Amino acid sequence: MFFASDNWAGAHPNICKALTKHSAGFSPAYGTDALADRVKARFDEIFERETAVFFTSTGTAANALALANYNVPGAVAFCHREAHLREDECGAPEFLAPGSRLRIVDGPDGKMSAKNLEVEINNVLDFGISGGKPAFVSITQATEAGTIHTLEEIDALAKVARRHELPVHMDGARFANALVALRCSPAEMTWKNGIDVVSFGGTKNGCWCAEALVFMNPKHAEQFAFLHKRSGQVISKARFIAAQFEAYFEDNLWLELASHANDMAALLENTINASNQLQMAWQRQVNEVFVIADRLDFEKMQAAGAKLYDWPTPYGLENHVADNKVIMRLVTSFATTPEEIKAFAHLTE
Amino acid sequence: MFFASDNWAGAHPNICKALTKHSAGFSPAYGTDALADRVKARFDEIFERETAVFFTSTGTAANALALANYNVPGAVAFCHREAHLREDECGAPEFLAPGSRLRIVDGPDGKMSAKNLEVEINNVLDFGISGGKPAFVSITQATEAGTIHTLEEIDALAKVARRHELPVHMDGARFANALVALRCSPAEMTWKNGIDVVSFGGTKNGCWCAEALVFMNPKHAEQFAFLHKRSGQVISKARFIAAQFEAYFEDNLWLELASHANDMAALLENTINASNQLQMAWQRQVNEVFVIADRLDFEKMQAAGAKLYDWPTPYGLENHVADNKVIMRLVTSFATTPEEIKAFAHLTE
Amino acid sequence: MFFASDNWAGAHPNICKALTKHSAGFSPAYGTDALADRVKARFDEIFERETAVFFTSTGTAANALALANYNVPGAVAFCHREAHLREDECGAPEFLAPGSRLRIVDGPDGKMSAKNLEVEINNVLDFGISGGKPAFVSITQATEAGTIHTLEEIDALAKVARRHELPVHMDGARFANALVALRCSPAEMTWKNGIDVVSFGGTKNGCWCAEALVFMNPKHAEQFAFLHKRSGQVISKARFIAAQFEAYFEDNLWLELASHANDMAALLENTINASNQLQMAWQRQVNEVFVIADRLDFEKMQAAGAKLYDWPTPYGLENHVADNKVIMRLVTSFATTPEEIKAFAHLTE
Amino acid sequence: MFFASDNWAGAHPNICKALTKHSAGFSPAYGTDALADRVKARFDEIFERETAVFFTSTGTAANALALANYNVPGAVAFCHREAHLREDECGAPEFLAPGSRLRIVDGPDGKMSAKNLEVEINNVLDFGISGGKPAFVSITQATEAGTIHTLEEIDALAKVARRHELPVHMDGARFANALVALRCSPAEMTWKNGIDVVSFGGTKNGCWCAEALVFMNPKHAEQFAFLHKRSGQVISKARFIAAQFEAYFEDNLWLELASHANDMAALLENTINASNQLQMAWQRQVNEVFVIADRLDFEKMQAAGAKLYDWPTPYGLENHVADNKVIMRLVTSFATTPEEIKAFAHLTE
Repeated sequence: MFFASDNWAGAHPNICKALTKHSAGFSPAYGTDALADRVKARFDEIFERETAVFFTSTGTAANALALANYNVPGAVAFCHREAHLREDECGAPEFLAPGSRLRIVDGPDGKMSAKNLEVEINNVLDFGISGGKPAFVSITQATEAGTIHTLEEIDALAKVARRHELPVHMDGARFANALVALRCSPAEMTWKNGIDVVSFGGTKNGCWCAEALVFMNPKHAEQFAFLHKRSGQVISKARFIAAQFEAYFEDNLWLELASHANDMAALLENTINASNQLQMAWQRQVNEVFVIADRLDFEKMQAAGAKLYDWPTPYGLENHVADNKVIMRLVTSFATTPEEIKAFAHLTE
Repeated sequence: MFFASDNWAGAHPNICKALTKHSAGFSPAYGTDALADRVKARFDEIFERETAVFFTSTGTAANALALANYNVPGAVAFCHREAHLREDECGAPEFLAPGSRLRIVDGPDGKMSAKNLEVEINNVLDFGISGGKPAFVSITQATEAGTIHTLEEIDALAKVARRHELPVHMDGARFANALVALRCSPAEMTWKNGIDVVSFGGTKNGCWCAEALVFMNPKHAEQFAFLHKRSGQVISKARFIAAQFEAYFEDNLWLELASHANDMAALLENTINASNQLQMAWQRQVNEVFVIADRLDFEKMQAAGAKLYDWPTPYGLENHVADNKVIMRLVTSFATTPEEIKAFAHLTE
Repeated sequence: MFFASDNWAGAHPNICKALTKHSAGFSPAYGTDALADRVKARFDEIFERETAVFFTSTGTAANALALANYNVPGAVAFCHREAHLREDECGAPEFLAPGSRLRIVDGPDGKMSAKNLEVEINNVLDFGISGGKPAFVSITQATEAGTIHTLEEIDALAKVARRHELPVHMDGARFANALVALRCSPAEMTWKNGIDVVSFGGTKNGCWCAEALVFMNPKHAEQFAFLHKRSGQVISKARFIAAQFEAYFEDNLWLELASHANDMAALLENTINASNQLQMAWQRQVNEVFVIADRLDFEKMQAAGAKLYDWPTPYGLENHVADNKVIMRLVTSFATTPEEIKAFAHLTE
Repeated sequence: MFFASDNWAGAHPNICKALTKHSAGFSPAYGTDALADRVKARFDEIFERETAVFFTSTGTAANALALANYNVPGAVAFCHREAHLREDECGAPEFLAPGSRLRIVDGPDGKMSAKNLEVEINNVLDFGISGGKPAFVSITQATEAGTIHTLEEIDALAKVARRHELPVHMDGARFANALVALRCSPAEMTWKNGIDVVSFGGTKNGCWCAEALVFMNPKHAEQFAFLHKRSGQVISKARFIAAQFEAYFEDNLWLELASHANDMAALLENTINASNQLQMAWQRQVNEVFVIADRLDFEKMQAAGAKLYDWPTPYGLENHVADNKVIMRLVTSFATTPEEIKAFAHLTE
């Protein structure tokens, strides 16, 4: 019963096969090989436009370097209070984009509200030079609360950003999970609604280690090669990441794996709804299920071998969770099986 | 005829098998799994002491984070003019160790001389606070010139460092190649002769992507976990690096692969020595061969499909290379075959 | 009618006399002269203990370097939402303390509550390495809202910090104004209640340019000289700052000037209270008066030549200020005269 | 006998008078007052063009922020081995321009040679992304060796820089001393020969604390206000620096003071030349005299109360100074008197 995180899973067999297949022979290092070119062309097809693609070894690096790419003196970046880059990356964004700062924009369901974004940008501008320079907006899709922004919500946030000439970043550690849930195209979830750059995550969805920073407009990335190199993110045998992505995209494997993970979460949701002792904290949208449980029940489940974490009470729910209750997060992945869900269901009876 | 670099090779079959084998099942993320523990214990055995081991995705990151770990206000780090961290990492050391600076220590054969190290440390100290604070010494083993420090040379440099209470780093991107050439133990090449921390490279020697920073004294690494995370180097599915190292160490695969690469370079050296048109620039010691050639011959070889680079004339040789000559670098790897050397030999006839 | 800020005033005549007096002759540069020593000894007397004192040219530099002195990998610093170092320094703290981050602790009256401080520290700790490392707490005294922490409040915040082994900083840009209002000793307002380091401001209270970072425990400052130098804050003719402080402390000039500024603010408060159109936003405590006014009245005053700013509505008051109202901030200084207050009173009739 | 440095002198009486005169009354803070505007207009007159002027409190800050203004990812800055910003600023340039690096360009007499500048730029470019991005060239005028670049030399260096689209900075801590020695106009010594930005020093030449960064093209400085603020260099009562500059420029005081300092150095040079025991190390050009002396004589002079420092043997002279000899540096200033030179002459008899 592994629901701790989708990065507890290993790698899909096709990914391993690709690594084995490409392990023979010689090819240029540092991402200048033919396979890398082919994979980058594949990204262009998927996003229906010319993009600039850079591989990174972690999502943290992708997020931080996205900010770094748009860093200016006095830069202030806007994100949700619970954004991964604020709470869970040990300050990587501020570190890899020196002198930049994150500023909280509140909103329910793990999402910034467009109205609050406008307010916070203006709060900074009101202080003039002393306040710093608004420089970046980051949206997490799917959010840390397992929710997804609708295309309208993305558009609304991007419009505020555009009004202030700010680039918009999408932290897509779970890009595929959000995409299949929204039933839209990658282009629609991104540049057609105002996104400039995406942290495109493959690792959580069945790769070993495959993340990419995808700039919707290659002109934005003109200095990026230097940022990439100087932060230690230019993998020497870069075809090793390219090979994973090639397999990931082949025959829409990536969409299939994400659909499976989401479906498993739906099954889990049914289990929760059928249970007397548990209660959905809010509605599931992708492959994460947040559940309100008695603290004792939570501990019992852990003792019974279920791998899952309790989760900080999010903004907007502070007053609705009783003291003897916890919010548990359960994450499914490409590797989750119906059997595991059934085993968990037994614990909730 | 691939002699451009050892990172043009792919991965050894055993490495791929290990990745496939460990791809199934679930295990904790971020390097807290049992396999990671097992591999770290293996490092302890290899180095004959308790160490602290952290995986990174690139050698650049390992080098820069080694410096970052010992960074202090005003830090000055000492390295050779041709050190990889000075010439070939786009400023990653200074960037990931903010406010630090590299200072050149000259010496022949790609190695700092102990005497010059003492001089340069004192040059900084003479300026007091304004000069900054000596903080770090980095040795490359094998060097960028394909030479190796003898144990005595390592000891002599470390003694100077020790006198000034400076930690000593070894950039071991080609650690295994140097080790088998020196016919000593990892302990002898490191802590027994004064090394505090090693960038331990596996990638160039047959892995896909496996680098580790190895602290000889775990006490030195007490804050390292934060440095590691905030620079985007904590791989989520960390077992994928651990798996590579497990296979790398099994049955001394790593030493075997390095020996093979060195042997192939020896074969290449013989070829050069037998040639009329080519001349060894200096003696080969590991898996890199530096050759003086007519510029025209160099271009002819490239045109004939040989993959190899010309190389900047190193310190100490400036006046000995004629204007119409180039220095070519040829690198062999675990994947180089005698057939390839023969094919190259044909070009030199 | 100059109420825009206390840094719109010039310098007290005694400060100018001191500069003239010390302008003759030669003495060692960079703060190593006898006058600097004498002034540092004076700080020790004032704080009733051995301190370590470093001059800076701005309060922003003093604040940022205080944080830099305690910077560690992953550092998270805690301060109030409205703290000067968060809102008004263009990111100087995060910039001069690379990789550090400020985290908001809310509380009414411009002050963090001790309870919220505990909560926020634990929020960071709950995320482990990913959350970063709590490293610093900063209190502003007097606050940006012109309020002051009582000794009990300072003690309560410091106790939380101490429990987590965090150093406590006091941003004392208006140290003297708070001190005379509290009628306590500098020792009581600082180290006797848990403060480790003070940004001690002289500029706003009658100096030209005289700020000092005062470490209550010199051991804390062992590496500070390097931080000081590398951030461009070591004034070459340092006696120029020392001379100002010498005059500032002589015959308690500093306390006298602060008392005068506070008294003028009290007079202003009376004026407000006597007015029909204006209303104190909250009670005055030092030399800043916050007033709720009709937006139209505010604009009329500005048009009549009164120099004063409107101010962002602070935390806790959001719902109490009507849309057609503004909060105006009026600041008095050593140079404010009763005549000026009277002139302003005419505007409010 | 104070020859340790020109920053051991105090301030000229006119500077003190200006501070006293401008200490009364109120005016806007942070450099937005009428006096600041007037002084900036004065800079435009002096440089015969529209400039952008920013005050700093130290020359170190001015130098480092000049680099910061042109910082790009992977930036490599070129300067002489003995440049103040390399040897004497505790890493401030690399710190305030995060991720940037200084690269040595050698040349005799404390000056880079244009040929070596070209070579070093190409050395970086040869490594591609890994080598980093040439971004900045810094010339010191007068140099740390007390020599001056001729207009032709400035032009030659700037032409190399221009060919690579690099901005050229002049560290003018002793701008006035060089200017009067060259008998040219400020425009000729700067933008008419390719200089883009000047660290314009007033402190060493009779001010208390007055440095300015002067951009020859205001367009270059469009983001500078944020750099200025976030490094803690925006003085709140900025008119105190403006007041110094106003007096400094009035009736060409600055040129007069620099001429005096240079003349005193000429007198000192005569003294040295007349002495049997001392010998000029190289020819004096501004207000610094470098002298070869027996170590014993040097120590005797110090014992007799002469304040002066020995100096590291510069590049190009290493083999010409015997082991029992030292190079002494003697610096004169606006405050040096002929009497003091005479007293020193007695020591050399």
